[in-house]
Amino acid sequence: MTAGEEMHALVERLYPLCRSITGDGVRRTLEIVSEYLPLETFEVPTGTEVFDWTVPQEWNIRDAYIADASGRRVVDFRESNLHVVGYSTPVDARMTLEQLRPHLHTLPEQPSLVPYRTSYYSPSWGFCLAQEALDRLPDGEYDVRIDSTVDDGQLTYAEHVVPGQVTDEVIVSCHTCHPSLANDNLAGIAVAAFLARELKNPWYTYRFLFMPGTIGAITWLSRNAERIDKVKHGLVLACAGDSGQLTYKKSRRGDAEIDRVLQYVLRGRTHEVVEFSPYGYDERQFCSPGFNLGVGSLSRTPYARYPEYHTSGDNPAFVLPEAMEDTLAVCRDAFAVLDRNRRYLNLSPYGEPQLGKRGLYDSLGGRSDAKQAQLAMLWVLNLADGEHSLLDVAERSGLPFDSVAGAAHALHRAELIKE
Amino acid sequence: MTAGEEMHALVERLYPLCRSITGDGVRRTLEIVSEYLPLETFEVPTGTEVFDWTVPQEWNIRDAYIADASGRRVVDFRESNLHVVGYSTPVDARMTLEQLRPHLHTLPEQPSLVPYRTSYYSPSWGFCLAQEALDRLPDGEYDVRIDSTVDDGQLTYAEHVVPGQVTDEVIVSCHTCHPSLANDNLAGIAVAAFLARELKNPWYTYRFLFMPGTIGAITWLSRNAERIDKVKHGLVLACAGDSGQLTYKKSRRGDAEIDRVLQYVLRGRTHEVVEFSPYGYDERQFCSPGFNLGVGSLSRTPYARYPEYHTSGDNPAFVLPEAMEDTLAVCRDAFAVLDRNRRYLNLSPYGEPQLGKRGLYDSLGGRSDAKQAQLAMLWVLNLADGEHSLLDVAERSGLPFDSVAGAAHALHRAELIKE
Amino acid sequence: MTAGEEMHALVERLYPLCRSITGDGVRRTLEIVSEYLPLETFEVPTGTEVFDWTVPQEWNIRDAYIADASGRRVVDFRESNLHVVGYSTPVDARMTLEQLRPHLHTLPEQPSLVPYRTSYYSPSWGFCLAQEALDRLPDGEYDVRIDSTVDDGQLTYAEHVVPGQVTDEVIVSCHTCHPSLANDNLAGIAVAAFLARELKNPWYTYRFLFMPGTIGAITWLSRNAERIDKVKHGLVLACAGDSGQLTYKKSRRGDAEIDRVLQYVLRGRTHEVVEFSPYGYDERQFCSPGFNLGVGSLSRTPYARYPEYHTSGDNPAFVLPEAMEDTLAVCRDAFAVLDRNRRYLNLSPYGEPQLGKRGLYDSLGGRSDAKQAQLAMLWVLNLADGEHSLLDVAERSGLPFDSVAGAAHALHRAELIKE
Repeated sequence: MTAGEEMHALVERLYPLCRSITGDGVRRTLEIVSEYLPLETFEVPTGTEVFDWTVPQEWNIRDAYIADASGRRVVDFRESNLHVVGYSTPVDARMTLEQLRPHLHTLPEQPSLVPYRTSYYSPSWGFCLAQEALDRLPDGEYDVRIDSTVDDGQLTYAEHVVPGQVTDEVIVSCHTCHPSLANDNLAGIAVAAFLARELKNPWYTYRFLFMPGTIGAITWLSRNAERIDKVKHGLVLACAGDSGQLTYKKSRRGDAEIDRVLQYVLRGRTHEVVEFSPYGYDERQFCSPGFNLGVGSLSRTPYARYPEYHTSGDNPAFVLPEAMEDTLAVCRDAFAVLDRNRRYLNLSPYGEPQLGKRGLYDSLGGRSDAKQAQLAMLWVLNLADGEHSLLDVAERSGLPFDSVAGAAHALHRAELIKE
Repeated sequence: MTAGEEMHALVERLYPLCRSITGDGVRRTLEIVSEYLPLETFEVPTGTEVFDWTVPQEWNIRDAYIADASGRRVVDFRESNLHVVGYSTPVDARMTLEQLRPHLHTLPEQPSLVPYRTSYYSPSWGFCLAQEALDRLPDGEYDVRIDSTVDDGQLTYAEHVVPGQVTDEVIVSCHTCHPSLANDNLAGIAVAAFLARELKNPWYTYRFLFMPGTIGAITWLSRNAERIDKVKHGLVLACAGDSGQLTYKKSRRGDAEIDRVLQYVLRGRTHEVVEFSPYGYDERQFCSPGFNLGVGSLSRTPYARYPEYHTSGDNPAFVLPEAMEDTLAVCRDAFAVLDRNRRYLNLSPYGEPQLGKRGLYDSLGGRSDAKQAQLAMLWVLNLADGEHSLLDVAERSGLPFDSVAGAAHALHRAELIKE
Repeated sequence: MTAGEEMHALVERLYPLCRSITGDGVRRTLEIVSEYLPLETFEVPTGTEVFDWTVPQEWNIRDAYIADASGRRVVDFRESNLHVVGYSTPVDARMTLEQLRPHLHTLPEQPSLVPYRTSYYSPSWGFCLAQEALDRLPDGEYDVRIDSTVDDGQLTYAEHVVPGQVTDEVIVSCHTCHPSLANDNLAGIAVAAFLARELKNPWYTYRFLFMPGTIGAITWLSRNAERIDKVKHGLVLACAGDSGQLTYKKSRRGDAEIDRVLQYVLRGRTHEVVEFSPYGYDERQFCSPGFNLGVGSLSRTPYARYPEYHTSGDNPAFVLPEAMEDTLAVCRDAFAVLDRNRRYLNLSPYGEPQLGKRGLYDSLGGRSDAKQAQLAMLWVLNLADGEHSLLDVAERSGLPFDSVAGAAHALHRAELIKE
């Protein structure tokens, strides 16, 4: 099985679970992910103050349906958890279709798809169904039942940390709160898990965050406020598996190192770079003005830009193994650059040092072709002024980052530069 | 009558008056304007030192002509005050055409037009006439008479102030020193007067200045030197009524707030933006290096770019009611943006505040379309860091300034942001 | 004889000499140049520590050849000094062609040309020859002889200083270490010498440096370290005579004054501007991070970009009198701008000063054309804030630098601006 196929299998296992911002669906999701990647799980009690917000009550649901007079379920939670509005309060009633209508959500312009709706902070209940299904319902009375609970409980999230040589951190975050939606965000969860597994002895400490959108990120930020200044870079993964091209959304800063690294790595691929906007996923929280972290977001087709977005069309068939593998590869490349992208100081900055006597230079001069490795050394020496990073050197010289990093390594070993 | 027609009627009333940098023509002009707008008039005595300059003697003229042997006036001030060089000293002489020629000014390349000439600071006299008229003059003797006085007196200018909620000021300036030239600058005077009438309870204090070019602006700056640091923004209005497209000339700073506001408001219209140059109207003085104020200039076709410029062709027919109305509309829009363009501080900057609990957010989540008003709130919150103005928010978000300002208003009322 | 023809004659005289980074060929070269331009020559002993380097032993060569069994020289130093690898150690041996091959250098892709090779810091010997010549050599035994010495001695370089009104310096540097190569760099030497002769009573002190590449520049920098902060600008001249268009390579800073001046002067010519790279000529040393001087490089076709580069094809016929004259003209124009490019302070910065009372302004106002000289004065006054140079004024106004400098001169004389 390719990595892409493995990730797709994970998406398929996670797909049926009824996730929300709290509840057992999230816990079960994290259990399954932990078969791939050790996770530390955190439970934060209902009522905990997290900045301007309060951790809400926990929602769980066992069953829900609308049944006609004959007892046949015309809308059935067991078929798809999208049929129930997230955080629906319990209902057990008989009502006419007319009475029921205000609680029914459809997509008239996409009549065969079931929409995804939630009502986290305003107690309410409802069903989502295809417009076509609604159109087929005869007038009459229906049994309406939602067997849910909204009670004091916990908000659940998890972390996986890959310790680095330094305690400065890179965070990789993906939201875990969407129920049966595959691209948004089971693909992101799968890519994050597989990425985390690959990282071996990195420079930075990498912290992978699996948590519900908005309230989860706010909860994490609130509980980790004193450590936030360790977070130097970050990436939010979402919609990571559809067939579209990669889209990088810059951090609020717009010129953060992560922004430059992702743009560098994406050069040569068909891709799109978009400016930050305070709408999307948890980059909204990481990039709120009080934090303003260097956190960007990597997607394939961004949220709300594909017709299947937030509908039953976003199912495992919408997610491709190759696409997830491609997203994974870009993350891998990006972190390989980020991890080596440091600033050096030339210890022999007055004129060029004599590379030849250190075995670093071709002894036979006068040749009209300069070898790339030697050019890379000259570039690193010239820009090793404490201000230019190796990525700056790569961009300014036009040389591959790997050559530049290799030159820096050789020069460092020869004690011609220091960090 | 439309506002454009009213402004045009004002231009026509002012047109016959013989204005200059001093004198009764200016006083009469300000009297007529004060029928539309209360003005405070200032008289500054001849000899007053104003920076590097001295207020000159006052010039007044009652009559002037060149008459042929039969007594027929071949050049007649009563027909057009352009016929006399501004500040001409008195003359009463008989001379041959040959003797007269050095005192006659024409436009050989525009033979039917009378040029506009002045000699403020170098005592001299002369007549301006059409080349065609000059060509028709037979040799022979002429009676030459200019019934003018150049005596100690006053320089006259006027102000109209619209008090704002703050004492920081916006100045709007137009030159009043040109005689029978309609676009340059009776149209500017008319637009300034009608603009001033419209302003109700603005944020800034708006000061409208009606004063002669160069010496007037220098006099005003000299007499108000201690208050100049209150002047935050300004606009010079000139050539405001011809049929050409609008032209905004940036302040010397090039990125002053007024520059950004005018460019923002002009987007979507055919218009031109030109860089600052130290030639033109009183932006030259406001943008001299000792002041370097954020003062730009709004014209339609700029000075010296239309063939009628500084000739008898710049008459009321050259000025269109619709054009003046359009200039007025852009000024109105610009000041509406400028007046609300403030910087805010997010009082809940760590993550997003919970808009829902304040009734500011749609409670039913998961919908794929975000409403503009909610987007505007998220943008304002995200950029409310004390560094970004609402215009920055509008430009960065692509949302209309009105939406952004409305969002700021709602958030301010909800005590989520402060100024 | 035109200046171009004179420079070409100098190139032809210098061409046969066997130059290297040290030795009598360099000394003889400087003697010939000193017939055109007084030079102060410096001799730096072998073993002198110069930053990370050590001045090497001196190399001299009297004769060298490969002779066949009949005694016929099949490769002969007397025909071209390119035939011997620079710094070849002495050899006197009989060997087979097979034994000889590792010491023979050719250009298989340019079979008729002799390459240029050196081995300064790694003791070795070798011959360079045309691939065609090598192909014609029969197997068998050859007498191989290089009559050279590599002994303690001196490194030789020279300076010519044109004293200026200030002690701040402009350096003009050209490398003197290449043997029979005409464009690289006899043309540069010739242009530098003729440029130096022309400079009369400049503002800056101009220091012309004739020295071997790399080690020469490093030696000079090392011996003049305490004076380097006097070096405000500089230009490296190389490949100054081929038929290609001019190429300006920016300093490492990228926006140094010399960079702006050269770009300004080159406007309107076909030319190329390239970014700094730490490969090329002695700009590598002047722009090393410890110095980071404002030193650019002017060439026609840059090094390694023409097929004759570092081969016997770079002979006097490759260099054109008109091309050297054109390079000279651009240098002359550039230094004429650089030398006058100063910052002024407006002594009457509040509003415009009254130019008319100082005889600097046309007294008859109202004319629609502003004379260039008057415009230039207004621009200089407006930007005379201590921050803008006259080149800034020229670029921003679009007026010719000469007009701007003339206006500054007039305003300075009128005591309206000061330096």
